[in-house]
Amino acid sequence: MNDLAIRPAVLSDIPAIVAMLADDPLGAERESPDDLTPYHTAFQRVTDDPNQHLVVAVRAERVLGTLQLTIVPGLSRRGSTRSIIEGVRIHAEERGSGLGTQMIQWAVDESRRQKCTLVQLTSDVTRTDARRFYERLGFTASHVGFKLTL
Amino acid sequence: MNDLAIRPAVLSDIPAIVAMLADDPLGAERESPDDLTPYHTAFQRVTDDPNQHLVVAVRAERVLGTLQLTIVPGLSRRGSTRSIIEGVRIHAEERGSGLGTQMIQWAVDESRRQKCTLVQLTSDVTRTDARRFYERLGFTASHVGFKLTL
Repeated sequence: MNDLAIRPAVLSDIPAIVAMLADDPLGAERESPDDLTPYHTAFQRVTDDPNQHLVVAVRAERVLGTLQLTIVPGLSRRGSTRSIIEGVRIHAEERGSGLGTQMIQWAVDESRRQKCTLVQLTSDVTRTDARRFYERLGFTASHVGFKLTL
Repeated sequence: MNDLAIRPAVLSDIPAIVAMLADDPLGAERESPDDLTPYHTAFQRVTDDPNQHLVVAVRAERVLGTLQLTIVPGLSRRGSTRSIIEGVRIHAEERGSGLGTQMIQWAVDESRRQKCTLVQLTSDVTRTDARRFYERLGFTASHVGFKLTL
Protein backbone atom coordinates (compact mmCIF):
# COMPACT_ATOMS: atom_id res chain seq x y z
CA MET A 1 0.00 0.00 0.00
CA ASN A 2 1.34 3.38 -0.98
CA ASP A 3 0.61 5.96 1.66
CA LEU A 4 0.64 9.67 1.05
CA ALA A 5 3.46 11.65 2.62
CA ILE A 6 3.64 15.42 2.99
CA ARG A 7 7.27 16.50 3.28
CA PRO A 8 9.48 19.56 2.65
CA ALA A 9 10.16 20.11 -1.06
CA VAL A 10 13.69 19.37 -2.28
CA LEU A 11 15.53 20.63 -5.35
CA SER A 12 14.57 17.62 -7.48
CA ASP A 13 10.85 18.33 -6.87
CA ILE A 14 11.04 21.64 -8.77
CA PRO A 15 10.03 20.32 -12.24
CA ALA A 16 6.97 18.57 -10.78
CA ILE A 17 6.00 21.63 -8.74
CA VAL A 18 6.34 23.99 -11.71
CA ALA A 19 4.35 21.60 -13.91
CA MET A 20 1.48 21.79 -11.39
CA LEU A 21 1.76 25.60 -11.13
CA ALA A 22 1.51 25.81 -14.94
CA ASP A 23 -1.33 23.28 -15.28
CA ASP A 24 -3.94 25.72 -14.05
CA PRO A 25 -6.29 28.18 -15.78
CA LEU A 26 -4.56 31.14 -14.12
CA GLY A 27 -1.05 29.68 -13.92
CA ALA A 28 -0.78 28.75 -17.59
CA GLU A 29 0.09 32.32 -18.60
CA ARG A 30 2.27 33.07 -15.62
CA GLU A 31 4.72 30.18 -15.51
CA SER A 32 7.65 29.03 -17.66
CA PRO A 33 8.06 25.25 -17.20
CA ASP A 34 10.64 25.20 -20.02
CA ASP A 35 12.97 27.55 -18.14
CA LEU A 36 13.48 26.45 -14.54
CA THR A 37 16.28 28.94 -13.75
CA PRO A 38 14.08 31.52 -11.95
CA TYR A 39 12.48 28.72 -9.91
CA HIS A 40 15.87 27.44 -8.74
CA THR A 41 16.84 30.93 -7.58
CA ALA A 42 13.52 31.32 -5.77
CA PHE A 43 13.77 27.85 -4.22
CA GLN A 44 17.06 28.86 -2.60
CA ARG A 45 15.43 31.98 -1.11
CA VAL A 46 12.52 29.93 0.20
CA THR A 47 14.71 27.28 1.83
CA ASP A 48 16.99 29.94 3.36
CA ASP A 49 14.01 31.44 5.21
CA PRO A 50 13.05 29.42 8.32
CA ASN A 51 9.52 30.88 8.21
CA GLN A 52 8.79 29.41 4.76
CA HIS A 53 7.55 25.84 4.50
CA LEU A 54 7.25 24.70 0.90
CA VAL A 55 5.93 21.14 0.92
CA VAL A 56 4.92 18.45 -1.52
CA ALA A 57 2.46 15.59 -1.19
CA VAL A 58 4.03 12.40 -2.50
CA ARG A 59 2.65 8.91 -3.12
CA ALA A 60 4.73 6.11 -4.70
CA GLU A 61 7.46 8.67 -5.38
CA ARG A 62 5.10 10.83 -7.46
CA VAL A 63 4.60 14.48 -6.53
CA LEU A 64 0.83 15.00 -6.45
CA GLY A 65 0.40 18.29 -4.63
CA THR A 66 2.17 21.34 -3.27
CA LEU A 67 1.61 24.34 -1.05
CA GLN A 68 3.64 26.98 0.74
CA LEU A 69 3.03 27.91 4.37
CA THR A 70 4.49 31.20 5.65
CA ILE A 71 4.74 31.93 9.37
CA VAL A 72 4.22 35.64 10.13
CA PRO A 73 4.85 36.98 13.64
CA GLY A 74 3.15 40.29 14.40
CA LEU A 75 1.88 42.66 17.08
CA SER A 76 -1.84 42.69 16.32
CA ARG A 77 -4.26 40.39 18.20
CA ARG A 78 -2.05 40.51 21.32
CA GLY A 79 1.12 39.61 19.54
CA SER A 80 -0.38 36.77 17.52
CA THR A 81 1.59 34.76 15.03
CA ARG A 82 -0.45 33.96 11.94
CA SER A 83 0.24 31.70 8.99
CA ILE A 84 -0.48 32.27 5.32
CA ILE A 85 -1.11 29.51 2.79
CA GLU A 86 -0.06 30.22 -0.82
CA GLY A 87 0.41 28.27 -4.02
CA VAL A 88 -1.92 25.34 -3.34
CA ARG A 89 -1.87 23.03 -6.36
CA ILE A 90 -3.14 19.48 -6.81
CA HIS A 91 -2.09 17.28 -9.73
CA ALA A 92 -4.87 17.07 -12.36
CA GLU A 93 -5.29 13.32 -11.83
CA GLU A 94 -5.79 13.80 -8.09
CA ARG A 95 -8.36 16.59 -8.07
CA GLY A 96 -11.47 15.63 -6.15
CA SER A 97 -9.62 12.83 -4.36
CA GLY A 98 -9.49 14.55 -0.98
CA LEU A 99 -5.79 15.34 -1.35
CA GLY A 100 -6.47 19.10 -1.16
CA THR A 101 -8.26 18.56 2.14
CA GLN A 102 -5.31 16.54 3.47
CA MET A 103 -2.85 19.23 2.43
CA ILE A 104 -4.81 22.08 4.01
CA GLN A 105 -5.25 19.96 7.13
CA TRP A 106 -1.47 19.50 7.21
CA ALA A 107 -1.02 23.29 6.96
CA VAL A 108 -3.53 23.88 9.76
CA ASP A 109 -1.85 21.28 12.00
CA GLU A 110 1.61 22.70 11.30
CA SER A 111 0.32 26.23 12.03
CA ARG A 112 -1.03 25.02 15.36
CA ARG A 113 2.29 23.32 16.10
CA GLN A 114 4.04 26.62 15.42
CA LYS A 115 1.68 28.38 17.87
CA CYS A 116 -0.18 30.36 15.22
CA THR A 117 -3.62 31.56 16.26
CA LEU A 118 -4.87 32.33 12.77
CA VAL A 119 -4.47 30.72 9.34
CA GLN A 120 -5.25 32.81 6.30
CA LEU A 121 -5.21 32.57 2.55
CA THR A 122 -6.70 34.27 -0.47
CA SER A 123 -8.25 32.73 -3.53
CA ASP A 124 -8.91 34.38 -6.89
CA VAL A 125 -12.63 35.20 -7.17
CA THR A 126 -12.70 33.29 -10.47
CA ARG A 127 -11.90 30.03 -8.64
CA THR A 128 -15.55 29.40 -7.92
CA ASP A 129 -15.12 26.01 -6.25
CA ALA A 130 -12.59 27.34 -3.74
CA ARG A 131 -15.10 29.08 -1.53
CA ARG A 132 -17.09 25.93 -0.78
CA PHE A 133 -13.88 23.96 -0.34
CA TYR A 134 -12.39 26.32 2.27
CA GLU A 135 -15.68 26.92 4.06
CA ARG A 136 -16.13 23.17 4.44
CA LEU A 137 -12.72 23.14 6.13
CA GLY A 138 -13.87 25.77 8.62
CA PHE A 139 -12.51 28.91 6.99
CA THR A 140 -14.59 32.09 6.87
CA ALA A 141 -14.65 34.27 3.74
CA SER A 142 -14.46 37.39 5.89
CA HIS A 143 -12.01 39.46 3.85
CA VAL A 144 -11.48 41.11 0.50
CA GLY A 145 -8.09 40.33 -1.01
CA PHE A 146 -6.34 43.16 -2.88
CA LYS A 147 -3.36 42.79 -5.20
CA LEU A 148 -1.13 45.28 -6.93
CA THR A 149 1.22 44.04 -9.65
CA LEU A 150 4.52 45.94 -9.68
CA MET B 1 8.27 72.52 9.82
CA ASN B 2 7.71 69.00 11.04
CA ASP B 3 8.03 66.48 8.27
CA LEU B 4 6.66 63.00 8.43
CA ALA B 5 9.14 60.14 8.72
CA ILE B 6 8.43 56.46 8.18
CA ARG B 7 11.00 54.38 10.06
CA PRO B 8 11.42 50.90 11.59
CA ALA B 9 9.52 50.55 14.87
CA VAL B 10 11.62 50.41 18.05
CA LEU B 11 10.78 48.97 21.46
CA SER B 12 9.62 52.34 22.86
CA ASP B 13 7.02 52.62 20.06
CA ILE B 14 5.08 49.59 21.35
CA PRO B 15 2.61 51.47 23.61
CA ALA B 16 1.70 53.86 20.77
CA ILE B 17 1.35 51.01 18.27
CA VAL B 18 -0.84 48.96 20.60
CA ALA B 19 -2.99 52.02 21.36
CA MET B 20 -3.65 52.37 17.62
CA LEU B 21 -4.37 48.65 17.21
CA ALA B 22 -6.91 48.89 20.04
CA ASP B 23 -8.52 52.14 18.83
CA ASP B 24 -10.42 50.43 16.05
CA PRO B 25 -13.90 48.90 15.74
CA LEU B 26 -12.43 45.42 15.21
CA GLY B 27 -9.28 45.83 17.32
CA ALA B 28 -11.05 46.98 20.49
CA GLU B 29 -12.03 43.44 21.44
CA ARG B 30 -8.80 41.81 20.34
CA GLU B 31 -6.10 43.86 22.01
CA SER B 32 -4.89 44.34 25.60
CA PRO B 33 -3.25 47.79 25.83
CA ASP B 34 -3.01 47.40 29.63
CA ASP B 35 -0.80 44.33 29.35
CA LEU B 36 2.05 44.88 26.91
CA THR B 37 3.92 41.65 27.74
CA PRO B 38 2.65 39.63 24.74
CA TYR B 39 3.47 42.54 22.43
CA HIS B 40 7.07 42.71 23.69
CA THR B 41 7.53 38.99 23.02
CA ALA B 42 6.04 39.35 19.54
CA PHE B 43 8.14 42.45 18.80
CA GLN B 44 11.28 40.43 19.42
CA ARG B 45 10.11 37.75 16.97
CA VAL B 46 9.30 40.38 14.35
CA THR B 47 12.65 42.16 14.65
CA ASP B 48 14.54 38.83 14.56
CA ASP B 49 13.02 38.04 11.15
CA PRO B 50 14.75 39.94 8.31
CA ASN B 51 11.65 39.54 6.11
CA GLN B 52 9.43 41.49 8.53
CA HIS B 53 9.35 45.27 8.34
CA LEU B 54 7.26 46.79 11.12
CA VAL B 55 7.30 50.55 10.65
CA VAL B 56 5.82 53.64 12.23
CA ALA B 57 4.98 57.04 10.76
CA VAL B 58 6.24 59.78 13.04
CA ARG B 59 5.83 63.55 13.03
CA ALA B 60 7.20 65.80 15.79
CA GLU B 61 8.11 62.66 17.78
CA ARG B 62 4.49 61.45 17.77
CA VAL B 63 3.66 58.01 16.38
CA LEU B 64 0.75 58.57 13.98
CA GLY B 65 0.61 55.36 11.96
CA THR B 66 1.91 51.82 11.67
CA LEU B 67 1.98 48.90 9.28
CA GLN B 68 3.84 45.64 8.84
CA LEU B 69 5.32 44.57 5.51
CA THR B 70 6.26 40.89 5.06
CA ILE B 71 8.49 39.75 2.19
CA VAL B 72 7.51 36.28 0.92
CA PRO B 73 9.73 34.49 -1.59
CA GLY B 74 8.01 31.72 -3.54
CA LEU B 75 8.01 29.57 -6.67
CA SER B 76 4.77 30.65 -8.33
CA ARG B 77 4.75 33.34 -11.06
CA ARG B 78 8.26 32.32 -12.21
CA GLY B 79 9.78 32.45 -8.79
CA SER B 80 8.25 35.78 -7.81
CA THR B 81 8.77 37.39 -4.47
CA ARG B 82 5.62 39.01 -3.17
CA SER B 83 4.97 41.27 -0.21
CA ILE B 84 2.05 41.28 2.21
CA ILE B 85 0.84 44.34 4.08
CA GLU B 86 -0.77 43.72 7.49
CA GLY B 87 -1.82 45.77 10.50
CA VAL B 88 -2.31 49.15 8.84
CA ARG B 89 -3.43 51.65 11.48
CA ILE B 90 -3.67 55.43 11.42
CA HIS B 91 -4.04 57.53 14.57
CA ALA B 92 -7.66 58.76 14.97
CA GLU B 93 -6.59 62.41 14.68
CA GLU B 94 -4.83 61.74 11.38
CA ARG B 95 -7.52 59.79 9.52
CA GLY B 96 -8.41 61.40 6.22
CA SER B 97 -5.15 63.37 6.20
CA GLY B 98 -3.51 61.36 3.45
CA LEU B 99 -1.21 59.60 5.90
CA GLY B 100 -2.64 56.18 4.98
CA THR B 101 -1.83 56.86 1.34
CA GLN B 102 1.73 57.84 2.25
CA MET B 103 2.19 54.68 4.31
CA ILE B 104 0.88 52.35 1.59
CA GLN B 105 3.03 54.21 -0.92
CA TRP B 106 6.03 53.57 1.35
CA ALA B 107 5.16 49.86 1.45
CA VAL B 108 4.82 49.72 -2.34
CA ASP B 109 8.14 51.53 -2.84
CA GLU B 110 9.90 49.28 -0.34
CA SER B 111 8.40 46.19 -2.04
CA ARG B 112 9.75 47.40 -5.37
CA ARG B 113 13.16 48.02 -3.78
CA GLN B 114 13.10 44.44 -2.50
CA LYS B 115 12.35 43.19 -6.03
CA CYS B 116 8.80 42.06 -5.25
CA THR B 117 6.53 41.79 -8.28
CA LEU B 118 3.27 41.74 -6.34
CA VAL B 119 1.95 43.50 -3.24
CA GLN B 120 -1.06 42.01 -1.51
CA LEU B 121 -3.23 42.60 1.51
CA THR B 122 -6.64 41.68 2.83
CA SER B 123 -9.21 43.88 4.45
CA ASP B 124 -12.20 42.83 6.53
CA VAL B 125 -15.38 43.11 4.43
CA THR B 126 -16.90 45.28 7.19
CA ARG B 127 -14.27 47.98 6.54
CA THR B 128 -16.40 49.54 3.81
CA ASP B 129 -14.11 52.50 3.10
CA ALA B 130 -11.08 50.27 2.52
CA ARG B 131 -12.10 49.10 -0.92
CA ARG B 132 -12.25 52.58 -2.41
CA PHE B 133 -9.03 53.52 -0.62
CA TYR B 134 -7.00 50.59 -2.01
CA GLU B 135 -8.55 50.77 -5.47
CA ARG B 136 -7.59 54.45 -5.68
CA LEU B 137 -4.01 53.36 -4.96
CA GLY B 138 -4.12 50.92 -7.88
CA PHE B 139 -4.96 47.70 -6.06
CA THR B 140 -7.49 45.26 -7.55
CA ALA B 141 -10.03 43.49 -5.32
CA SER B 142 -9.46 40.26 -7.21
CA HIS B 143 -9.45 37.79 -4.32
CA VAL B 144 -11.55 36.40 -1.49
CA GLY B 145 -9.73 36.34 1.83
CA PHE B 146 -10.35 33.33 4.08
CA LYS B 147 -9.41 33.07 7.76
CA LEU B 148 -9.49 30.23 10.24
CA THR B 149 -9.04 31.02 13.92
CA LEU B 150 -7.14 28.29 15.77
